[in-house]
Amino acid sequence: MSEFTAANYAHMAEALRLAAHGQYSVHPNPQVGCVIVRDGVVVGRGGHLRAGEAHAEVYALAEAGELARGATAYVTLEPCAHHGRTPPCAEALIAAGVAEVVVAVRDANPQVAGRGLKLLRDAGIHVRDGLLAEQAQAQNPGFLRVMAGGRPWLRAKIALSADGRSAMASGESKWITGSAARADVQRWRARSSAIITGSATILADDPSLNVRPEMWADAAQLQAHAANGVRQPERVVLDTFARTPIDSALFAAGGAVRVLHGAIDGSAEVAARVEALKASGALLQAIALATANSPTQSAPQTASNQSGLDIHAALSTLAAAGHHTLMLEAGATLTGAFLRAGVVDELIVYQAPTLLGSEARAAIAWPMQRMTEQCRLRVTDRRQIGEDTRTIYHCSVAAT
Amino acid sequence: MSEFTAANYAHMAEALRLAAHGQYSVHPNPQVGCVIVRDGVVVGRGGHLRAGEAHAEVYALAEAGELARGATAYVTLEPCAHHGRTPPCAEALIAAGVAEVVVAVRDANPQVAGRGLKLLRDAGIHVRDGLLAEQAQAQNPGFLRVMAGGRPWLRAKIALSADGRSAMASGESKWITGSAARADVQRWRARSSAIITGSATILADDPSLNVRPEMWADAAQLQAHAANGVRQPERVVLDTFARTPIDSALFAAGGAVRVLHGAIDGSAEVAARVEALKASGALLQAIALATANSPTQSAPQTASNQSGLDIHAALSTLAAAGHHTLMLEAGATLTGAFLRAGVVDELIVYQAPTLLGSEARAAIAWPMQRMTEQCRLRVTDRRQIGEDTRTIYHCSVAAT
Repeated sequence: MSEFTAANYAHMAEALRLAAHGQYSVHPNPQVGCVIVRDGVVVGRGGHLRAGEAHAEVYALAEAGELARGATAYVTLEPCAHHGRTPPCAEALIAAGVAEVVVAVRDANPQVAGRGLKLLRDAGIHVRDGLLAEQAQAQNPGFLRVMAGGRPWLRAKIALSADGRSAMASGESKWITGSAARADVQRWRARSSAIITGSATILADDPSLNVRPEMWADAAQLQAHAANGVRQPERVVLDTFARTPIDSALFAAGGAVRVLHGAIDGSAEVAARVEALKASGALLQAIALATANSPTQSAPQTASNQSGLDIHAALSTLAAAGHHTLMLEAGATLTGAFLRAGVVDELIVYQAPTLLGSEARAAIAWPMQRMTEQCRLRVTDRRQIGEDTRTIYHCSVAAT
Repeated sequence: MSEFTAANYAHMAEALRLAAHGQYSVHPNPQVGCVIVRDGVVVGRGGHLRAGEAHAEVYALAEAGELARGATAYVTLEPCAHHGRTPPCAEALIAAGVAEVVVAVRDANPQVAGRGLKLLRDAGIHVRDGLLAEQAQAQNPGFLRVMAGGRPWLRAKIALSADGRSAMASGESKWITGSAARADVQRWRARSSAIITGSATILADDPSLNVRPEMWADAAQLQAHAANGVRQPERVVLDTFARTPIDSALFAAGGAVRVLHGAIDGSAEVAARVEALKASGALLQAIALATANSPTQSAPQTASNQSGLDIHAALSTLAAAGHHTLMLEAGATLTGAFLRAGVVDELIVYQAPTLLGSEARAAIAWPMQRMTEQCRLRVTDRRQIGEDTRTIYHCSVAAT
């Protein structure tokens, strides 16, 4: 990294800030930012804001105009080399006559990684990469992992009391966190490709799980939403027996709903409910059931040996559908199942300054018998949100 | 407060810092600091470090010498007017010829509050009080409340996982927090008049609950300890049936041990154990039993209707013994009982970044049935201690 100067860092940091402008709108594309620098002066800035619209490099080059000739371009993600919805950015940089391109992270798709850089080098442009790579990686963890053939990035959200409980034993429950925490949850939803929940949560709470920018967006964001419409993440229900009612708030709120049900043969009842949900506008997909006692099932076995969906299969299906950044907002059973399956990348915990008592319910159902089974986490962020605390834990340890 | 200048604040803040030098050593006296200022220049500084040694004012006046004449003295607590182990400080200030005295908080004992100030005023000294009063109050909350006839200040310490658990259901338990958190617990112990625990904790874990400065003190503190000996807070066991074994680590560690047992008539067995504990050097005291189902009992009722000690009676006994700042380090049952009794002023929670699962034990046994019973807390301090987080909650809500 010693090859980079303080000015290099500062320019890439600005490109990362420009990229973040697209965090609520750019899905399914990645966040990308670009800065053009000529003789130490920034002459062009661009951020990719919406799929189908121009890429960051195009905006930055347009602002720079003739000043781009001989300049250095800082791009947070390797410029594309393929003709997609827009012409390849590598070609645009070559045509503009830039002398140097500095890239934070390479494209993660093994089929295309390095091709944009090669195109630039073949055109005689000086190319360097790896500047603020970790920060750029953190901006698009799901996109980059799915492009590389991996599973989507998954954030699980829970709300807890100071003594670690989420509802009374009776099931009585109520927001224990304040309005600032609820607004913060909205922002995480807006950053997600899709929101996952379970049919038990739908049946118990009937949430709409949609994005309501009026709860959190600033004036500029609200104006942009008014002009372009709010991007609503798809709502995904894990629903082995297709029990989601067709009059759920999910449907009333508008936006796409996907119901992943069990691949259950021979149940006319389930088949009828699947058809009714389809008729209500939901996308229905059958998913393999988890094998008995597998930690990857989405719900615990009952006495009648009904097992839940295979969580890995569900995530593969969502990745194939273009979802790379998922948020789980579910009850203790499903949250516990995802954690045990080792597919939760970030656990976002809102903790309220209150005691709910020792008979109240856990937010994560995960029976462990011995201390050696404990799941160690790593704190990556902690802050005060109104009266509550938000802690982001990274779950680096897969379940045993 | 507008009567005070920025310089006034700065000088009193320095006096508060001097007072804090005594936090590990001054018990049973309060922390007090004093600064003497002549023509805007600090000419004398003093802190009260150890009961029986000179008071803060005496050290500060000695340093100031003749410069004290016509100077202003800043004192964090109203100067004493009575002849105790040392001559009254108010008289020393008068004899030194100071022109003005600024006090943070008045003495809390209604019998003597204001007498020191009156003595000064009668001698023609300009007296002001209330500067940084809240901060000075927070430095000696237990001393001031007990002096005013109230109960001791009580801090309850618990250690939790991220999902709010403290041990496995089997009872298997182990430090879940790191060494930095354990060292921090030592500092809280060293600041306390006494450490309270329950016989169940003694029987299960056999802790010594003593202060080991080598775990946390800096070089200067260690030198002071080497010279003066470490002040060991008294260890207090709430032990209805006098079950504390005479070979407990409590006794081996040295220092005073007090066992508060139940006022149980007619049990020869209990009486014999009481005598054995006395012979081991413990101080034994009989305490009233809580009335059945009272939230102020120290242990839950069992089928045989054995109720625990009356917590309020136990605290009155400790206050009468000169204890004004207590730390509770106990299991879930006793911690829950103290919280329910509404006598916990600060709940100190160490939270480790780990999940212990939904079958693990709670750190606070407090059965609640409805959301309306929840106990709201107020966060007054939160910080990272090694890998763990320490949150200090103020419990302003008494139990129902």
